[in-house]
Amino acid sequence: MIKSVKEKIILGVDPGTNYMGYGLLKVEGTKASLICMGVIDLHKESDPYLKLGHIFERIWGIIESYLPDEMAIESPFFGKNVQSMLKLGRAQGVAIAAAVHHGVPITEYAPLKIKMALTGNGAAAKEQVASMLQRILKIPEEDMQKQLDATDALAAAYCHYLQMGRPTVEGGAKSWSDFIKKNPTKVSKRKV
Amino acid sequence: MIKSVKEKIILGVDPGTNYMGYGLLKVEGTKASLICMGVIDLHKESDPYLKLGHIFERIWGIIESYLPDEMAIESPFFGKNVQSMLKLGRAQGVAIAAAVHHGVPITEYAPLKIKMALTGNGAAAKEQVASMLQRILKIPEEDMQKQLDATDALAAAYCHYLQMGRPTVEGGAKSWSDFIKKNPTKVSKRKV
Repeated sequence: MIKSVKEKIILGVDPGTNYMGYGLLKVEGTKASLICMGVIDLHKESDPYLKLGHIFERIWGIIESYLPDEMAIESPFFGKNVQSMLKLGRAQGVAIAAAVHHGVPITEYAPLKIKMALTGNGAAAKEQVASMLQRILKIPEEDMQKQLDATDALAAAYCHYLQMGRPTVEGGAKSWSDFIKKNPTKVSKRKV
Repeated sequence: MIKSVKEKIILGVDPGTNYMGYGLLKVEGTKASLICMGVIDLHKESDPYLKLGHIFERIWGIIESYLPDEMAIESPFFGKNVQSMLKLGRAQGVAIAAAVHHGVPITEYAPLKIKMALTGNGAAAKEQVASMLQRILKIPEEDMQKQLDATDALAAAYCHYLQMGRPTVEGGAKSWSDFIKKNPTKVSKRKV
């Protein structure tokens, strides 16, 4: 892929042990647009090492195809199960290896921070995050439904874009709370 | 490295977040000998992604230099700390990525199994494992002291060698318990 010098590409990844989501954003000036998003389906692969191999090769391929400038990753929610945490760490490790090998800097964001940046609510549901991304990036409803498992990855990329240049969000606001103040009618009121 | 068709090379790795040990064994027929062992010191690197990058590049380099046929890894002892388990998983993930990319099959061994295979005691101390390896592989005392952090990796490789072809251990025995039966005078008696 040929990039213009002014644009930046952000790769968001959400490595899981059964599905691995990814999303690519192009940032031109202060505007972000979707390049593509997708899911690597791993649940049929029973060999744990081949699973990790698939993740590695796909992330490697995505990096070589799209030449991202930055990678954003969702840091996991620390559950109680040490065994699943090890599995998750391994999946993240192979994705990180592919990025570090290509000199792509990595930034990690906590789920709460991503949700907060996108919806203004750290406890937002997956669907709320998805619908916000769909609206901001003008993703057709059909594409969104097909790639729902990729929204966490795309959300990490979008969160990184917001942090990166700290551009103003739509409506001329500098942050979500500022946006709410300036656009009270655009925000639906619901109990959280 | 040029290998003869009859020989096999086993790479043992012990990925940690501060030190990453490795050991290479050459197996000719039923005889195993040490190629080399070493430690990648990571404790001075504060950036966690560069740490993982170092592990990846070194393991990648070792695989390309020695062309191992198999990789053996010590599966971690599951502690209570989920955060350190994630870190360990990431370190293992990058080592696994390098192996899978080169088509090197991976086998995992529990610490208890490795200790049992080498010393006949699943609760053996690191020093006991090291001294057994030193004796079997005729490693000079000085080299052993320098590379003590690599013994777990070498022990994993040696355990894999024992499992692989199930060769008879020295003294004409087929297993450790068989060895004890056949060589009662060679075994020091101690309470475990």
